[in-house]
Amino acid sequence: MSHKSPSYSVTIRLRYPDEPGQLGTITSAVGQENGMIGAVDIVNVHQECIVRDITVSASSVAHGHQIVDRLRQLQGVDVLNVSDRTFLLHLGGKIEIHSKVPVKTRDDLSMAYTPGVARICDAIVSDPESAFNLTIKRNTVAIVTDGSAVLGLGNIGPMAALPVMEGKALLFKEFAGVDAFPICLDTQDTGSIVHACQNIAPTFGGINLEDIAAPRCMEIEERLSSVLDIPVFHDDQHGTAIVVLAALQNAVRVVGKQLEDLRVTLSGAGAAGTATAKLLTHVGVGHIVVCDRAGAIYQGRSADMNSSKQWLAKNTNPEKVAGPLSHAIAGADAFVGVSTANVVKSTDIKRMGRDPIVFALANPDPEVSPEEAIPHVAVMATGRSDYPNQINNVLCFPGFFRGMLDVRAGCVTEGMKVAAASAIASVIQERELRPDYIVPSVFDRRVAKAVASAAASAARREGVARREPQSASFEDHLNHS
Amino acid sequence: MSHKSPSYSVTIRLRYPDEPGQLGTITSAVGQENGMIGAVDIVNVHQECIVRDITVSASSVAHGHQIVDRLRQLQGVDVLNVSDRTFLLHLGGKIEIHSKVPVKTRDDLSMAYTPGVARICDAIVSDPESAFNLTIKRNTVAIVTDGSAVLGLGNIGPMAALPVMEGKALLFKEFAGVDAFPICLDTQDTGSIVHACQNIAPTFGGINLEDIAAPRCMEIEERLSSVLDIPVFHDDQHGTAIVVLAALQNAVRVVGKQLEDLRVTLSGAGAAGTATAKLLTHVGVGHIVVCDRAGAIYQGRSADMNSSKQWLAKNTNPEKVAGPLSHAIAGADAFVGVSTANVVKSTDIKRMGRDPIVFALANPDPEVSPEEAIPHVAVMATGRSDYPNQINNVLCFPGFFRGMLDVRAGCVTEGMKVAAASAIASVIQERELRPDYIVPSVFDRRVAKAVASAAASAARREGVARREPQSASFEDHLNHS
Repeated sequence: MSHKSPSYSVTIRLRYPDEPGQLGTITSAVGQENGMIGAVDIVNVHQECIVRDITVSASSVAHGHQIVDRLRQLQGVDVLNVSDRTFLLHLGGKIEIHSKVPVKTRDDLSMAYTPGVARICDAIVSDPESAFNLTIKRNTVAIVTDGSAVLGLGNIGPMAALPVMEGKALLFKEFAGVDAFPICLDTQDTGSIVHACQNIAPTFGGINLEDIAAPRCMEIEERLSSVLDIPVFHDDQHGTAIVVLAALQNAVRVVGKQLEDLRVTLSGAGAAGTATAKLLTHVGVGHIVVCDRAGAIYQGRSADMNSSKQWLAKNTNPEKVAGPLSHAIAGADAFVGVSTANVVKSTDIKRMGRDPIVFALANPDPEVSPEEAIPHVAVMATGRSDYPNQINNVLCFPGFFRGMLDVRAGCVTEGMKVAAASAIASVIQERELRPDYIVPSVFDRRVAKAVASAAASAARREGVARREPQSASFEDHLNHS
Repeated sequence: MSHKSPSYSVTIRLRYPDEPGQLGTITSAVGQENGMIGAVDIVNVHQECIVRDITVSASSVAHGHQIVDRLRQLQGVDVLNVSDRTFLLHLGGKIEIHSKVPVKTRDDLSMAYTPGVARICDAIVSDPESAFNLTIKRNTVAIVTDGSAVLGLGNIGPMAALPVMEGKALLFKEFAGVDAFPICLDTQDTGSIVHACQNIAPTFGGINLEDIAAPRCMEIEERLSSVLDIPVFHDDQHGTAIVVLAALQNAVRVVGKQLEDLRVTLSGAGAAGTATAKLLTHVGVGHIVVCDRAGAIYQGRSADMNSSKQWLAKNTNPEKVAGPLSHAIAGADAFVGVSTANVVKSTDIKRMGRDPIVFALANPDPEVSPEEAIPHVAVMATGRSDYPNQINNVLCFPGFFRGMLDVRAGCVTEGMKVAAASAIASVIQERELRPDYIVPSVFDRRVAKAVASAAASAARREGVARREPQSASFEDHLNHS
């Protein structure tokens, strides 16, 4: 891929004679090497020399090196320093602890710490529920991972997963004012992960499980949900399922079909695929066929099964379709891929039903490239930001936890997930809806607010809320941040 | 006690006729009830009425109520609202997560989160040590408690302990720019606490154990220190020991004695007492007698022993002094109490050696009241802020962790503790030293800096540092906060 990305951008500090034409020579050299120039700043000018910082986006680390090497060869140009902007941004981590109350004087200390804090402890002893008012529990979520299934990188372990969890904490704060803290566990044992989460739970108002490999992620979520009185949400499962449902709701409006009548072929029976199939089943999509590497999953299949595939066999594929994905996709109204690159061809898409909907969400390389699919589909979505209709979990989790914290939800229900999906979908007005605009932008500030409100209402409706939401809570949290 | 404290202060909103003499009547009534008036603010004035907020410090919750009741009885005065300032300050918790990098645009997102973050993960996979540079691990400490020995409140459990841990996080940030996060564990089992700490360790650059009951706190610290490659420090043990040693160093200078020659009687064989005895032994104080409820601990005593008391029996009390504290204290140069209220009388102090040094650190009520002791002692210190010479752990832990993080210390050594104690002591210049000024104020900004530098140097000297400290690191961290 020759796509230039800021994630591969470098800032190059150059010193060269301050003469006409010099900057032109430099920028042309960058252009000839196919680098994309961003900011050009003067650092200082002295005697006959000028020092500038030139920021260049490249398409890979090697490409960045190549551009710098080219500049080094230019006569009279000294490369003083090269800094990788992505690494600079991560230096020292991306989040910090911030004090909300001053401790500048003895009076401050006597209220925030001893002896005053003892009164707050006493109040929580008398009424444990008051911890939600009097501590960070009210607004704090643990982002828990074991580092076993991180992005597309796989099992890289807890320490290497920390930058991702910090990034997630940024998104929680930025989009919904939720204080989230990364807990990267030095164990990949199901029981130990469950115990660790149980043990750390008192500090938190919710737990977001993240990048934990299937199938243990499902058992962990189930066991924790049954023992804890705070919501536990595995984003890779349910975040994906919710955003897929939102996108599908809008996609069927574009093509004039009904969810209930939809035939959906789903590729991938891991955490995301299973959760998506369950949520689609819950909202009444009757014809779902889930395929894994071995083909369609149907009741009676014996090869390569596990407990979640057993569930899928029992609860989807009523017609017991068997065979490879290329067979199962025939006649489908929608294809949802949460699997791996290039498992679908244009010939497969041509055999789908009228106005096919294709969500090819594998990252970075989708199940079918948009270039190949788009001529044959009515609506296309991917997981990538460089195509329209990006299915991105960030549309869900910040607002979803905001809503749960606002009403102190004790758990996550199917109704809350469905409500969140509808909220995401409804951000796009009927008149705005287009084949290339079925999901809102991740930067659309209305999304988290709508999701929070929907999740909170659903929690109240389903009896899992422990308090009324405070008015204007959402804005309060954002202003605070 | 009739001591008025801001930790019992209320803000009372009153509406009354805006006539001469009215405010005088109100403030006099507060004075007659022995309330101490702080801020008096106008909220609004309309027609013939004025609304004011009057902040009053009381000596207890009941006393606050009594003052408000008195005001309610005043003719023409309406009490509109009463707010407890300590509770207000704790509402919603005292710390939050703060983003250090922006996520406002797609370019931000692509560097801080996907896809750019994957490059950071890869770098940590290649070089795990780089996690210290590229994540929050560099500056982040876990404050771990099981809620079993919180302040003077005892075993109140993890959730009720959270306000104290948040307060501690405030102090870490305020005094040394350390990002500390409260981990309140829902278990009081030694093995489970050890496993929980091991499991959460990847996120952190150090672990501060807090308010965990003895003797399990010692076993937990020992086991964690042997399995983790980040420093583990139980503040209630070693923080106390370090500040006591600092104060004792300056106290002997005041009375013209040498530490090595000192006869010290120590009351309390719990976490703090044992750690203090160990540290004093380490620096060469040869005559230490530790007493618990059963009296002096000596080699051969059989009643009420445990493993740490066995250590004390073997390594202290060379003369095998037996009998009650009142006997053991006779002839002592210094008394250090880390036990409970009123175990020492003035008659005991009179039987100490020349120029007695008395540290009565039990909180809130000391082993002997300063009023009773001061006429008979050369130097007195307590754990309280309302007398001179407050022995407060906050003099140690923020700077100590700052220093350890700066050089990436892998563990805590005795040498680092001794260096920290000397650093605290040395903040007070020879010419400033007085009987009522042997420890610096907790708000003396020089303390944390001196402690950090001393701990870092000692860590390097003792071979447990994993990098050179960066120049100006201390200021950087504070400016950042």
